[in-house]
Amino acid sequence: MEQVVAFVLELDRLKAVTRKVKPLGQDRYENSAEHSWHLAMLALAMAPYAEPGTDMDRVIRMLLVHDIGEIETGDTLFFIEAGRHERKAAEEQAVARILGLLPHGQGEALLDLWREFEAGQSREARFAQALDRAAPVLLNLANNGQSWRENEVRYEQVVGRVGPPIAAGCPALWNHIAGRLDAARDAGWFGMG
Amino acid sequence: MEQVVAFVLELDRLKAVTRKVKPLGQDRYENSAEHSWHLAMLALAMAPYAEPGTDMDRVIRMLLVHDIGEIETGDTLFFIEAGRHERKAAEEQAVARILGLLPHGQGEALLDLWREFEAGQSREARFAQALDRAAPVLLNLANNGQSWRENEVRYEQVVGRVGPPIAAGCPALWNHIAGRLDAARDAGWFGMG
Repeated sequence: MEQVVAFVLELDRLKAVTRKVKPLGQDRYENSAEHSWHLAMLALAMAPYAEPGTDMDRVIRMLLVHDIGEIETGDTLFFIEAGRHERKAAEEQAVARILGLLPHGQGEALLDLWREFEAGQSREARFAQALDRAAPVLLNLANNGQSWRENEVRYEQVVGRVGPPIAAGCPALWNHIAGRLDAARDAGWFGMG
Repeated sequence: MEQVVAFVLELDRLKAVTRKVKPLGQDRYENSAEHSWHLAMLALAMAPYAEPGTDMDRVIRMLLVHDIGEIETGDTLFFIEAGRHERKAAEEQAVARILGLLPHGQGEALLDLWREFEAGQSREARFAQALDRAAPVLLNLANNGQSWRENEVRYEQVVGRVGPPIAAGCPALWNHIAGRLDAARDAGWFGMG
């Protein structure tokens, strides 16, 4: 029980990892813990648009655990390509360490889920990745492109990097987003590069 | 799809609802969104201590949804008895309104889960309630009793109000906590009333 409590207190640190988008109406950056909750709720809400047969409980568990490595590595803007491989390796090490705090090999199933999410091959991982890519887009579309402006993210980067995974994992969501991205570009919400 | 997105953006507001405890090492109050994530992870970690047969996926969904009514009502210190019935009625109305944003009656299953959690009768609800009561205690025990001190919460209030639900829903966790609460009292971490 002491090990379980130590694990849970270690997870508490994810509340201090800040991302690049701001919650609507707030003058602070979103953290990865509340983002993970929001994604799990997004999965529940978007379930009718998942490929038939998708196990939504596995999707939710994946999303709950997908960012815990950031306790050590922090969050990196999705559009930064340089060093991605090294960052992911460091993140996997962190995830393995943190889940290793749980007794009796209890963390192994969660580590497998984390790896499955990262691989993005299974039906559940594709759906979960689509939601993870879409969430900051939905916030930006409701927030005048706040993090795109602040980080000089270009329209082509968003369409090129988040379009394919969203379209692959949740086509209906990409249909919804694609047209709105065009309108956001016309409104000048993106960086010019 | 537009209704689903509107629902998800409405949920974003839970990130602005502050609670009484602070994440460890941070000089700000926890919000109810990151708290909900933390509880879902606590459920995964504490699963071996649940009553056999507990459906952990239902527990997780319950915990994800249990605080969304606070978007309208805010969070109230658990030890405030006055007006509890009225607050819960207002919270249920808020939950019904928010889940009603989802199309095709999709929110009804989540509303049922919210009510099941509040009723605290099922195996899953008892376990989920135990974790919800225990989480701020675990943070306070790691944080010199921060929210107990700030809100003049007495030892007897904590033992009397959170002890029974934790003991009922997760006896092993209460065994762990009870002794530590005695040590916290001896250390002077509680209000004197």
